Amino acid sequence: MSPALGEVLFGDPFAVMNTVGLVAFALVGSAKAIREKFDLFGITVVGLSMAFVGGVTRDILVNRVPLALQSSIEISLGLLGVGLAVGLSIMLDSPDEHLVSVLADAVGLAAFATTGATVATDAGVSAFGVVAVATINAAGGGAFADILLDRSPFILFEDFYASCAALGGSAYWLVITAGGADSVASAACAVVTVGIRLAAINYGWGLPEAQILGLAREKGDDR
Amino acid sequence: MSPALGEVLFGDPFAVMNTVGLVAFALVGSAKAIREKFDLFGITVVGLSMAFVGGVTRDILVNRVPLALQSSIEISLGLLGVGLAVGLSIMLDSPDEHLVSVLADAVGLAAFATTGATVATDAGVSAFGVVAVATINAAGGGAFADILLDRSPFILFEDFYASCAALGGSAYWLVITAGGADSVASAACAVVTVGIRLAAINYGWGLPEAQILGLAREKGDDR
Amino acid sequence: MSPALGEVLFGDPFAVMNTVGLVAFALVGSAKAIREKFDLFGITVVGLSMAFVGGVTRDILVNRVPLALQSSIEISLGLLGVGLAVGLSIMLDSPDEHLVSVLADAVGLAAFATTGATVATDAGVSAFGVVAVATINAAGGGAFADILLDRSPFILFEDFYASCAALGGSAYWLVITAGGADSVASAACAVVTVGIRLAAINYGWGLPEAQILGLAREKGDDR
Repeated sequence: MSPALGEVLFGDPFAVMNTVGLVAFALVGSAKAIREKFDLFGITVVGLSMAFVGGVTRDILVNRVPLALQSSIEISLGLLGVGLAVGLSIMLDSPDEHLVSVLADAVGLAAFATTGATVATDAGVSAFGVVAVATINAAGGGAFADILLDRSPFILFEDFYASCAALGGSAYWLVITAGGADSVASAACAVVTVGIRLAAINYGWGLPEAQILGLAREKGDDR
Repeated sequence: MSPALGEVLFGDPFAVMNTVGLVAFALVGSAKAIREKFDLFGITVVGLSMAFVGGVTRDILVNRVPLALQSSIEISLGLLGVGLAVGLSIMLDSPDEHLVSVLADAVGLAAFATTGATVATDAGVSAFGVVAVATINAAGGGAFADILLDRSPFILFEDFYASCAALGGSAYWLVITAGGADSVASAACAVVTVGIRLAAINYGWGLPEAQILGLAREKGDDR
Repeated sequence: MSPALGEVLFGDPFAVMNTVGLVAFALVGSAKAIREKFDLFGITVVGLSMAFVGGVTRDILVNRVPLALQSSIEISLGLLGVGLAVGLSIMLDSPDEHLVSVLADAVGLAAFATTGATVATDAGVSAFGVVAVATINAAGGGAFADILLDRSPFILFEDFYASCAALGGSAYWLVITAGGADSVASAACAVVTVGIRLAAINYGWGLPEAQILGLAREKGDDR
């Protein structure tokens, strides 16, 4: 992609990515809560948590007042996502497993990996810091939503979820370090994250489990 | 209430509300841990967590070192609440369901909604930010205590708990925006929060559950 | 120990303690995840969480960008601990219950209590603040790892775990307040923490449980 095309598609990459991520993740979090038969208040709390926890954590880590508390537009975008999930759940049987939710989750992951990498780079952290903040921004909301739903976080069992965001954050850092523009780095991060995530879903990728390597062989499953 | 009466009752609204909230929430958190048969150390940890997690989160969000780490008075108030719960549990059968705990929970919720709204307003966040920080300050401790107790947070299943704090925070913002004094806004926030909370308990208020609206109809209860 | 010997052993006490704590806790967290049959990605996430959550929380509390995001050396030390745990699990049957893990846990606890007390003292918090930050730095990682593993945090049921760090933090504060050097205070904190922790394990120390005192006598065990 030429820088010029990047500029057109991502005039203000942060604003675009932030908007997409908030709506998408609020939708996915709400769909999970609907599946668990939470009531409307619980659905809203889980949806907004999934949308906001990653970005708020990012802002706390780089030592600034969270964007979500500074602008009232953010919460409106989150509520839009919650409303979309409620609408979907009326039309569909398993909203959290539907293609719309699966795509929204992958797109939200890519969008928030990008916002995380952007904010971390602006804050002047290390290369590892950029990758870590991108990953936390992208995967933190889903992990927190799972804790609210009282289950072990999904991201621990899904090899290519948080790691897609980490690879996207690495792509961002590489482009910036190579002298690329923020818009190009943002596009690279988003494309790498969403591409690997969708490929992993499509082809059922996974890392070998520990027990296949002979680890933890001594215990029956006691859970 | 006239501003003059407000000044008398709430000379330093923040200090009064903070004191009340710390003692009340430490008592409630400890009573929950006693119910779950935690030992004395666990009771203290859960009680202090319920008392401090909301306020510490508030301070982190507005980017200041938590008050609880700056003053040794705060921890003393928390330990007083833990002691009260242990004393109550010797005298009563179900301390966490007793009227004292129920009232302490409602009063602590109102007190911390008020401290949250005050600090957020001082930090200059958006209207949504004021409501969000008030709600997190008020409901964060109870949610965290539930996670420590290894159960799905109470606030997700109780429609009129966090939402009472959100309404109280809204009342605070409305009074301040209308030009009212901090003491009047604080009184309004506390009265709205505790009033709606106690009315909800007394009359058994709840929002319609998602499945009543036809959501999530496809799955049996698999939990 | 003479201050001179302290200087030799702990030339830069913070760097030594931080290095020891990161490797030890990453090893312990990874061993827990191996026991629970997590895959390689989950093992890495739990190990790094145990190593970094305490220190990141410490840095957030004293309002600075986490050290772990500012230096790429930190993550390398965490990964070294994860690698050691994987290696151990191939050689041993129950890596998380082996003497190596038990010792690593006690040593990591002492090391992180010391880094926490040092950073808190530099930040100028209250006496309680020093003890609280030392305890959170030391016990926060293990508590978070347990939440990721979907079980009630270990530290709530083990009386002499977090409390050892609190006593170590108190020793640090006492030495500093008495005019002692940072290196002496660090040595005192580490020795007190690890000594009490190992004694508690060896002699099976525990505080009386609440029900022995007649608390919570009304309910059968409903969990």
